Amino acid sequence: MAAQSLTIDRTKSAERIERDIETLAGPDYTRSDEAIRRYAYTPEYRNTLDYFIRELEALDFQIHEDPVGTLIARNRLAGEKVFGVGSHCDSNRNGGKYDGTMGVVTALEVCRLNHDLGLNLPLQLISFLEEEGSGFGQMLLGSRIIAQRVTEEELREKFRAVDDGRSFWEHAEEAGYEPERWRDSIHILDDLSGWIELHIEQARVLQDTGNRIGVVHAIAGYVHADITVHGRGDHAGATPMDFRQDASLVAAECMLELERLAKEAGNGTVGTVGEIELRPNLINAVPGQARFSLDIRGVDEEGFRGVARDIAAFAKEAARKRGMTADYAQRQTLSATQLDERVVAALEQAAEASGEPFMTMHSGAAHDTMSIADRVPSAMVFVPCKGGISHSPEEDADSADAALGAEIMLNAIRSLTANER
Amino acid sequence: MAAQSLTIDRTKSAERIERDIETLAGPDYTRSDEAIRRYAYTPEYRNTLDYFIRELEALDFQIHEDPVGTLIARNRLAGEKVFGVGSHCDSNRNGGKYDGTMGVVTALEVCRLNHDLGLNLPLQLISFLEEEGSGFGQMLLGSRIIAQRVTEEELREKFRAVDDGRSFWEHAEEAGYEPERWRDSIHILDDLSGWIELHIEQARVLQDTGNRIGVVHAIAGYVHADITVHGRGDHAGATPMDFRQDASLVAAECMLELERLAKEAGNGTVGTVGEIELRPNLINAVPGQARFSLDIRGVDEEGFRGVARDIAAFAKEAARKRGMTADYAQRQTLSATQLDERVVAALEQAAEASGEPFMTMHSGAAHDTMSIADRVPSAMVFVPCKGGISHSPEEDADSADAALGAEIMLNAIRSLTANER
Repeated sequence: MAAQSLTIDRTKSAERIERDIETLAGPDYTRSDEAIRRYAYTPEYRNTLDYFIRELEALDFQIHEDPVGTLIARNRLAGEKVFGVGSHCDSNRNGGKYDGTMGVVTALEVCRLNHDLGLNLPLQLISFLEEEGSGFGQMLLGSRIIAQRVTEEELREKFRAVDDGRSFWEHAEEAGYEPERWRDSIHILDDLSGWIELHIEQARVLQDTGNRIGVVHAIAGYVHADITVHGRGDHAGATPMDFRQDASLVAAECMLELERLAKEAGNGTVGTVGEIELRPNLINAVPGQARFSLDIRGVDEEGFRGVARDIAAFAKEAARKRGMTADYAQRQTLSATQLDERVVAALEQAAEASGEPFMTMHSGAAHDTMSIADRVPSAMVFVPCKGGISHSPEEDADSADAALGAEIMLNAIRSLTANER
Repeated sequence: MAAQSLTIDRTKSAERIERDIETLAGPDYTRSDEAIRRYAYTPEYRNTLDYFIRELEALDFQIHEDPVGTLIARNRLAGEKVFGVGSHCDSNRNGGKYDGTMGVVTALEVCRLNHDLGLNLPLQLISFLEEEGSGFGQMLLGSRIIAQRVTEEELREKFRAVDDGRSFWEHAEEAGYEPERWRDSIHILDDLSGWIELHIEQARVLQDTGNRIGVVHAIAGYVHADITVHGRGDHAGATPMDFRQDASLVAAECMLELERLAKEAGNGTVGTVGEIELRPNLINAVPGQARFSLDIRGVDEEGFRGVARDIAAFAKEAARKRGMTADYAQRQTLSATQLDERVVAALEQAAEASGEPFMTMHSGAAHDTMSIADRVPSAMVFVPCKGGISHSPEEDADSADAALGAEIMLNAIRSLTANER
């Protein structure tokens, strides 16, 4: 039976969250004057971990770091079941104050509330290393290491620092870690009975629908690919319309068709052409080649993969009709992640009890939760961000929403761990 | 009454033209090992002028240069009527052997034939300075100076060398010219009774229609402009299709509409989107802004200007329908140039007499002839270039076609100057 919902002092929690966020936006915590810029093995990232460590030690949490630098803090001994909360505190190179960091700060607030209210919940906070890829160009790197979704060769050789080209391995060793023990990272999941990550939405659905909380039931999978159309470069003035093989026109047809296919697929499936590159890209030259990227996502696996197949076929046919050819090349793909029904239901119940407007939704963006959801019953909580803007110094979110998130997480965890306490 | 057509020794003329072309592709005449690269005030350009000067002096031509370096050679005294032939011998930075140079070489061959056959035609060869803009980023510069279509401020200050940023004026003085006398350049047109420029077609119409000669009756005018669509940048995964303001989709609609409008306008009107720039141009970002270029040309002034007006209006409306805005900004524009009916007719008659396949056509590309056609009765002759390729080391054309062009020019000039001799 679910415990009765607690209502926390949301104003006080919002103030503490705000203070954490603003502290971590200070000069000791970012490498840029104009944005938040912090990533693995930099002094600013170290300062950020140390801030959380100090705050968590004050709550009598035991602090650990995994062999490459993911932070773990728990209020139970090893072997005892704990419930996981957290996110990441590295940023985009031109990032804002909220992406990731607000999730770790809110997890810290859950730990504080647990302490202050004497709830005695078994908790483990995690701050994953290198979610954004700013250090080594690899997204979700810390959680993929935990999930063993990397190879030793990648860590030793292939993953190289954006700043100096040296290997991840070398940087990790230099920072005092033991990358040769990376396979042990998986054990930080051993005692987890569940996991909840709070994150800013990074889109405008919550804002535009007037909801303060999103309970996330699934994370979209995606296909990243490129289509290259091979036409013929010609002089833009001297070549009559009927003599052309203008690759850009096939690209234009595909862009509009991708929009149609994504809408037709429904279920939140989305398709985007984010990059276009014409050759030679001169005002007075008929484009002989056009490359454009495809970002196709959805939680309906068949739906979004069908869109990718259909646009590839459409491109080839559209090119053929104009006497050209088109190639489809996949960059990478990831399956959709269904989150845990029981954790989702507990969050929905707690959100309902909060009396504030919320919705159940999926995440279109990737998150560390994708790396661990097949081993640990997981869900996520979204809070609105202004205008949907993220990965920018313009990023803005409301600490009051995060405080509401903390209350909902706290009540969900109380309910989910009732039998364990 | 038209003189009877002469048939020249085309094989011999083709050999001489080939020799000139190949000589001028040698290391003394280009700044690049991989392409023809020559432009004003470089040693390689000087060597090229000197080559023509030596060849023309051997034919007893008097040599002059205008105050900035356009070459003039004539076989009559000042004040006597002469018929002009020539083109330009500067190249694109990554150019081929034929663009421009084949026109000057063929004009030289006309002078040689006149000499060898004792025709005594009054001739003036012109090799215009800086047609391609490789030196100072200004197309048709030499002929625009002659036409007084520049300002002294532009020559003194605004037109700056691509290589070192110093002014045109300074470079011209350093090369021994007298730019302060630039207004005198117009006088090189004083004695011209007509003008014919031979040039490679720079498109594939002659090749694809099996014609060896194009008699050019008009040069297309153009509008160069940009349309910028202002949408909203969003996360490509997290933003549902119905929440987007994707600027790239308006661009795609405009690209296809421009093709439709140009075809509808007919009369050889063409429209091209050669450049596209998305922002932020990332695979996982909905484009918040899209800029694309417009190159719209035609010989039907109302036709091509109507296409420019219509696409600007279409863009604004297409953007509005999707909740966005679009701006249209003109870069530059030039009116279409109608060439002289009498010179065109003389060329058609001479082409007919040659027994070889020819067509009357317009030029989609701009040429120096545009700068002088309002003062001197002018026309042009096109010869095919392989695959329509130009502005590339791959450029290829047949000296036999140029020799045929020389014969046709010679006969046309004989006919046109019959009353003057």
